Amino acid sequence: MRQTIRTLRALHSVHATKFATKPTSALISTAVSCAVVAVNAGQRRQYASAPAGTQVVKLTSQMYPDVVRDGRFGEISREDVEYFKSILSPGAVLTAAEEDLSGYNIDSMRKYRGQSQVVLKPRSTEEVSLIMKRCHERKLAVVPQGGNTGLVGGSVPVFDEIVISMSLMNKIRSFDEVSGILVADAGCILETTDQYLAEREYIFPLDLGAKGSCHIGGNVATNAGGLRLLRYGSLHGTVLGVEAVMPDGTIFSGLGKLRKDNTGYDIKQLFIGSEGTLGVITGISILCPRRSKVVNVAFFGLESYDKVQQAFVKAKGELSEILSAFEFMDRASQDHVARFTELRRPLDEPHNFYVLVETSGSNLAHDEEKLQTYLEGLMESDVISDGVLAQDETQAKNLWTWREGIPETLGKSGGVYKYDVSIPLDELYKLVEDTRVRIQEFGLDIGTDDSNVVNVVGYGHLGDGNLHLNVAVKQYDKKIEHILEPWVYEWIEKRQGSVSAEHGLGFAKKPYLQYSKDQSVIQLMRQVKKVYDPVSSKF
Amino acid sequence: MRQTIRTLRALHSVHATKFATKPTSALISTAVSCAVVAVNAGQRRQYASAPAGTQVVKLTSQMYPDVVRDGRFGEISREDVEYFKSILSPGAVLTAAEEDLSGYNIDSMRKYRGQSQVVLKPRSTEEVSLIMKRCHERKLAVVPQGGNTGLVGGSVPVFDEIVISMSLMNKIRSFDEVSGILVADAGCILETTDQYLAEREYIFPLDLGAKGSCHIGGNVATNAGGLRLLRYGSLHGTVLGVEAVMPDGTIFSGLGKLRKDNTGYDIKQLFIGSEGTLGVITGISILCPRRSKVVNVAFFGLESYDKVQQAFVKAKGELSEILSAFEFMDRASQDHVARFTELRRPLDEPHNFYVLVETSGSNLAHDEEKLQTYLEGLMESDVISDGVLAQDETQAKNLWTWREGIPETLGKSGGVYKYDVSIPLDELYKLVEDTRVRIQEFGLDIGTDDSNVVNVVGYGHLGDGNLHLNVAVKQYDKKIEHILEPWVYEWIEKRQGSVSAEHGLGFAKKPYLQYSKDQSVIQLMRQVKKVYDPVSSKF
Repeated sequence: MRQTIRTLRALHSVHATKFATKPTSALISTAVSCAVVAVNAGQRRQYASAPAGTQVVKLTSQMYPDVVRDGRFGEISREDVEYFKSILSPGAVLTAAEEDLSGYNIDSMRKYRGQSQVVLKPRSTEEVSLIMKRCHERKLAVVPQGGNTGLVGGSVPVFDEIVISMSLMNKIRSFDEVSGILVADAGCILETTDQYLAEREYIFPLDLGAKGSCHIGGNVATNAGGLRLLRYGSLHGTVLGVEAVMPDGTIFSGLGKLRKDNTGYDIKQLFIGSEGTLGVITGISILCPRRSKVVNVAFFGLESYDKVQQAFVKAKGELSEILSAFEFMDRASQDHVARFTELRRPLDEPHNFYVLVETSGSNLAHDEEKLQTYLEGLMESDVISDGVLAQDETQAKNLWTWREGIPETLGKSGGVYKYDVSIPLDELYKLVEDTRVRIQEFGLDIGTDDSNVVNVVGYGHLGDGNLHLNVAVKQYDKKIEHILEPWVYEWIEKRQGSVSAEHGLGFAKKPYLQYSKDQSVIQLMRQVKKVYDPVSSKF
Repeated sequence: MRQTIRTLRALHSVHATKFATKPTSALISTAVSCAVVAVNAGQRRQYASAPAGTQVVKLTSQMYPDVVRDGRFGEISREDVEYFKSILSPGAVLTAAEEDLSGYNIDSMRKYRGQSQVVLKPRSTEEVSLIMKRCHERKLAVVPQGGNTGLVGGSVPVFDEIVISMSLMNKIRSFDEVSGILVADAGCILETTDQYLAEREYIFPLDLGAKGSCHIGGNVATNAGGLRLLRYGSLHGTVLGVEAVMPDGTIFSGLGKLRKDNTGYDIKQLFIGSEGTLGVITGISILCPRRSKVVNVAFFGLESYDKVQQAFVKAKGELSEILSAFEFMDRASQDHVARFTELRRPLDEPHNFYVLVETSGSNLAHDEEKLQTYLEGLMESDVISDGVLAQDETQAKNLWTWREGIPETLGKSGGVYKYDVSIPLDELYKLVEDTRVRIQEFGLDIGTDDSNVVNVVGYGHLGDGNLHLNVAVKQYDKKIEHILEPWVYEWIEKRQGSVSAEHGLGFAKKPYLQYSKDQSVIQLMRQVKKVYDPVSSKF
């Protein structure tokens, strides 16, 4: 049966305009254009951060007793601290003796906790170089830290590593309004940087939930993926140059500002995604696209994962050059957001899956027409069950809340086992279903008052083949971890997926590298590490 | 004075419709839409290749007597040839004793000529591995060769290196029509691969003049830029995986098929742009975008380089997501094409600069409207002097001839000193002007019957900050080379540009690396080479 779209009506004043429900009466019209309302390009509302947990976070060294500190690393002395105070600006050396360093020792998931006694806050590349030289001579271990928003325990110490916080290196160095090339300190906050660019009609080619805290240097160090990858590609393509301080203090001056430079090996690529293990990134240059003048957001419900895939293929064909996000969320994830936020849901009836589509373009009328044609086609072919379209920027932000609110609200339950994986699209959601079955097979309930497992949800950047499987628990428990790992990684290996699509390896995923990479590749990684860091890679 | 666009009229039946001339009468109208005619997305006509030169190409070893063969490399023996015949398929071992190998020894510019006695044509990665193992044991030097279309002498032997031709490894291994991920042998020809994708409504994210001959493996090995970089970004962003055979014969299995995979250092990046010095690329996986349904081409004349820049900034803002090429050509380059092809020129009157703008999008009416608004704005603000719009695919191809025909027709003069450089946009064209002055300062005429210097032209991918400075000569001459080099590289170094934007280093540019890269970066390159190729990097 051919479905046609009903006359539009504002169903939720606080939300968005319903663009379609399956017609049950004769009240049928094809007019939908008035409902597809563009919003100005701009930052979406960031979902309020979860309050800091009150549960005590166990020391990583206690949780993982098999991981032992290498005795060949030195221990920081009073002389070291004095030296750092002598080379850095006042207030740039924090010690546990004088203040609470838990904000630097505990990660954002409250899963890992190090025991660093010293935090250093350099203000320049030269200061970072002096720090690294000293640490190299004294064999002191360090952990570079950006906004400390990482999800794999890579941004906090495991033992007593010195934390090098990049938070005071936060200057825009230059921006070329003709070429769109930005050069900036590593410690610039992503959202602040994007706002700077927005004022000049440009956009940072990366966006993610933690934008209000994360640093652009950390984004590059971890090769962050996020919400704009579908449109603007990976940082390996957009980052044009990297300045970094090597383990021995040498400054790597690879801060090219050219879109094309084919002179020798592209060494800077290795820093992108190296997670601070090859050096401390102190500055980046990056190609920024022009900011789209209009952004549209649609949110709809579908009854099967198969229909989600159909909607995606159609979006690539019809929205094509204006498609900027295609996020999918399962029912469990949306129920969870609804329960914790008490926000009114965008769609009245429940659906098995939800999709948020965002378009970004330069012409309001053109983008509306493309989105309208796309949505009509989906309705007509019974792919979509129901949906809404944002009518203004506030409504668009509210719709995004249903996507960005998932990790935020899950985090409130206590802890979250997070699996950020790439899997060929056709089997992507099966991992979530299989995980639920496995947990229950081990005799654990999901979501009951008594059970530690609060929820098992799946969502992610479908356009990138990237699933976020999240298992929310009341408290972290080795038993649950052993049910999930390495089973999840074996499941992924069988499908030639990746055990870390965008979060990196960090502390959490390092043991599972071989599930995603061939030995010939791992061997080269080891050798590259030796080139960059000849001393500690001997340990 | 505000200019308005005149009623359109077909001026050249063989070319394209004039979209505007400066109004000199009262015959004024704003109707332009009928002239903006889309063409189907598809391959542009490739300009007919120049016939093989008749001049004898001197041996590289004679032209550059300072470059000496390292005696520690072995010499190929009869046993080696027998071994290769025993492991490869019939006809896959070519020897100078039996046939003319000049097609493998001479580069496409007819500037370099090696003396290889043996050409090997493996059919599989395993065969490449066996070849490399043998060469490693016997310390035989090799040069991997794709379509032999390189412009820096990197694809041919310097001395007696064995040529490993990838031409028989030309199979598409897989293509996923949902994700757009292609996996293919290195020896697939770019144009053939793109045609395969076109049949599936996808596009290879790279296009360049040599597409009819060049190999996709060679494209990746040299990090080719080309005509689509502005839209789809560099290969560092689009290549998802590389399979390569290392110097000792080990197979590097990094042929990932995932859009996101953040598990460790992105080692495969080093192969992209390594020009065969780290290993022989045998296969690639690459993310291919959906092919645009409609392509529009406009070609216009401008009176100053400053106006070219203004037109570019406006294109980024107004054509935005549909802009797919912004190529500029100077007057000398267009005069040259006209003289050699005897084609009728798109614009009647001469202009100091010309720009070709291409848009690619999914909706004919939308793209036409955007292009029309863009061109009207440029006319009104006196940026453009005159221009034409292609009305169909044939006209679009004809317009592209005026861009792609430049290197082809210059090559017919005898030889071309090619400088493919990145320079900050505001000074980009000044290099061409300064080069003309310098040549004349040395007492040489340009373009006279007696002079060896036929022409000095500038053109290129303005959107990428990439200038092609070409000095066409009747014959290669050390004296001219010394006038130009290292002066050109010093000029670029002062502006922090790149001495090779997209052609690579090869034989031609290797001595000039330090003009574009910091010592800290070059040092790491050397160390990386040692990791990949411990034996020959000791030489």
